[in-house]
Amino acid sequence: MLDLRTPKGTVDLNPQQAFTQNEIVKTVKTIFEQHAGVPISTPMFELRDILMNKYGEDAKLIYNLEDQGGDICSLRYDLTVPFSRYLCINKTQKLRKYQIGNVFRRDNPSFKTGRLREFIQADFDICGSNLPMVNDAEVVKMINEIFVALKIPFNLKIKLNDRRILMGLLKFYEINEDLRGTVCSTIDKVDKLTKTQLEEEFITKGLGNEQIVKIMKFITLKKSNDEIFDFLKSIETDDFEFKTVIEEMELLFSYLKLYGISNAVFDLSLARGLDYYTGLIIEAVFDNCEIGSVAGGGRYDNLCKSLSEGTFNVPCVGFSIGVTRLFAISELKTPNFDIFVGSGHGLFLEDRMGLLNTFWSFGLRCETFSGKRINFNDQVAYAKKQNYKMAVFTGTNEVKNDIYLVLDLISMSRQEIKRSELNDFISKTFPSL
Amino acid sequence: MLDLRTPKGTVDLNPQQAFTQNEIVKTVKTIFEQHAGVPISTPMFELRDILMNKYGEDAKLIYNLEDQGGDICSLRYDLTVPFSRYLCINKTQKLRKYQIGNVFRRDNPSFKTGRLREFIQADFDICGSNLPMVNDAEVVKMINEIFVALKIPFNLKIKLNDRRILMGLLKFYEINEDLRGTVCSTIDKVDKLTKTQLEEEFITKGLGNEQIVKIMKFITLKKSNDEIFDFLKSIETDDFEFKTVIEEMELLFSYLKLYGISNAVFDLSLARGLDYYTGLIIEAVFDNCEIGSVAGGGRYDNLCKSLSEGTFNVPCVGFSIGVTRLFAISELKTPNFDIFVGSGHGLFLEDRMGLLNTFWSFGLRCETFSGKRINFNDQVAYAKKQNYKMAVFTGTNEVKNDIYLVLDLISMSRQEIKRSELNDFISKTFPSL
Repeated sequence: MLDLRTPKGTVDLNPQQAFTQNEIVKTVKTIFEQHAGVPISTPMFELRDILMNKYGEDAKLIYNLEDQGGDICSLRYDLTVPFSRYLCINKTQKLRKYQIGNVFRRDNPSFKTGRLREFIQADFDICGSNLPMVNDAEVVKMINEIFVALKIPFNLKIKLNDRRILMGLLKFYEINEDLRGTVCSTIDKVDKLTKTQLEEEFITKGLGNEQIVKIMKFITLKKSNDEIFDFLKSIETDDFEFKTVIEEMELLFSYLKLYGISNAVFDLSLARGLDYYTGLIIEAVFDNCEIGSVAGGGRYDNLCKSLSEGTFNVPCVGFSIGVTRLFAISELKTPNFDIFVGSGHGLFLEDRMGLLNTFWSFGLRCETFSGKRINFNDQVAYAKKQNYKMAVFTGTNEVKNDIYLVLDLISMSRQEIKRSELNDFISKTFPSL
Repeated sequence: MLDLRTPKGTVDLNPQQAFTQNEIVKTVKTIFEQHAGVPISTPMFELRDILMNKYGEDAKLIYNLEDQGGDICSLRYDLTVPFSRYLCINKTQKLRKYQIGNVFRRDNPSFKTGRLREFIQADFDICGSNLPMVNDAEVVKMINEIFVALKIPFNLKIKLNDRRILMGLLKFYEINEDLRGTVCSTIDKVDKLTKTQLEEEFITKGLGNEQIVKIMKFITLKKSNDEIFDFLKSIETDDFEFKTVIEEMELLFSYLKLYGISNAVFDLSLARGLDYYTGLIIEAVFDNCEIGSVAGGGRYDNLCKSLSEGTFNVPCVGFSIGVTRLFAISELKTPNFDIFVGSGHGLFLEDRMGLLNTFWSFGLRCETFSGKRINFNDQVAYAKKQNYKMAVFTGTNEVKNDIYLVLDLISMSRQEIKRSELNDFISKTFPSL
């Protein structure tokens, strides 16, 4: 007997769920287009070698395709690495692009928190060599706009940090350069692990006691943005880059103020697990909500260089909205339709088909019943359940008197219209057509 | 050095291509919704056992996922088998659904004809036990409506046949029951193989000379619909089902006439390779166009029964539009935007960011430049290339006089507006907001 289910960590969406998800995608796309984004598309799988060494410790979650002869491929893990591959192939030096599509991770699934093995990401990226933090501020602004447009009843917090600040601090605390990447992976778990678990992981990774105390201090620093700037400025270092990055972060926050963003917080514990970020890193979360981060992103100025082994590069900054996760906390919406075509006292099938044909020619969304069912009340109940605005009936009486019976399914008021006046009736009732 | 390309048989879409494909999907979706379709979604891969024995000789084209522990899966080959699995799980007895998504086939790719290994199918299906040919006629009508709406400059021909007629003929010509499925696979190639190649394949499959002559006769019968009905009625058989199917096909053509469809042709050579069709089969092609079939479908009344091993069933009829193939013959479209924000005689970055912020709050699609480039003509050229309707400039003069310079990028006419009247100007210029 066949095991009739979806594979572990994947789900079907029923019509209400799929409709709701489509509406979320539509809203996100509207904001993407308001920021002059153009779409691109890349395949669902990539040559495996292209995905290697891009995702830090999470690379083990990549789905591989079986070797059936020919190319050795894996399902895409995100949209960023394939996009960078696209940029390298096309030698693109300037682009504002979006891409909305499925990505795949063999992670431990949790339906409650919307963490699935197959999920939809909606990505927006700005490529090009530009003035510091101008594009970075715009993508942070966009994340905020998207969640305002989606009207999700939680408070959004946009956490910001800069990889260069994190690396600068680790350097200042004399963490070996080789270890800084993997230490970031642990820092990234600050909200998931207990203090003891974090410390144990740092010990396993070879850090000394004093180093751990210093790291624990700054990653648990929950202070105002101003206080974090004060802390960073208080560090006595002659590292010029470190000081420049602090200035750039101040510039970013000034741009965000100009854009009216008040929910961006400077968070030194934000690390992001992925290897490819080089500057700003972003993570958006809802306060008091179990679903974890709903958007993430940052600046990746060297990913193209690494993919093309130095033959091409373009700086990029962008973000990814976790559509599937958002869907998990969204209120379900129901599609609606225009006219249900019914009959009384008999089938009148061809008469109903003629009505449909007329309605379709106007672009109306309609259906009739196609079984032997003729009970009037059942038809009305079905039409109401399917969210039809109105029902139009033919029948013995209607044929005899050359009329149709029109039932408004919201007010439940009835009227008769002459058959010769059907087109006028449609134009009057649906003026936007 | 990394091999920076997409896997064999897959492609990237650049912004113009992706935009055009999205527009095709939008049009198809509009027709789906006019026929009261609701969306569903299923995973990109399925448990491998579910896909086995559903696709006849094409099963070898299925992409397998590597066994990395856990479920043994394959990428979906079409949307029909996953949908039937969905119906079985949900015990759905009545549904009009659409699904638009990628499917995967390890076929020999051809970019010219739009035959790729990853492509988008747009499926519509009507499930439920209904009067003969009512839903069948509607799906044929829909295929026609979709191609009318897409305005593709080729003549569409909708080929129709019924599996039961094909099987009835093979039975009448005394083809062994076990062979009928594989003989259909060969018949399906009538447009791809030469007469000799066809005959050779029939011989290989064990048919006798006399049988081959008879099959060749009816599959090369290119006659009017009426003449084909005459031919079928002339067959002296007491096979009751065969006679019933002929009557049902006459009913179908009468419904199509009612729906104003004049390009549907009865084609006895139409077989469709897939195993699961049980009644009507449909294939839409463009006359004088090399891309092959652009839509296909039919009735599959027993697929749920076979999947659930008899514990559940629902009759279905539906079709699939080959979006990627259509895209190969579609004219490319370009996205357009509303306002480019520029500056003259200096950067005026924060001034421009403020303008963007205002435009975004109105829902306008806009951008500014974020590099150090300030040349006025370059800005205008870029804005025109990106299909902006207008450009709004700040600059030394504009700040001094408290105005903005507005450039209509279509007429190239200029006007100055007062800064205090910016909101009024937007409302007047974009009344639909």
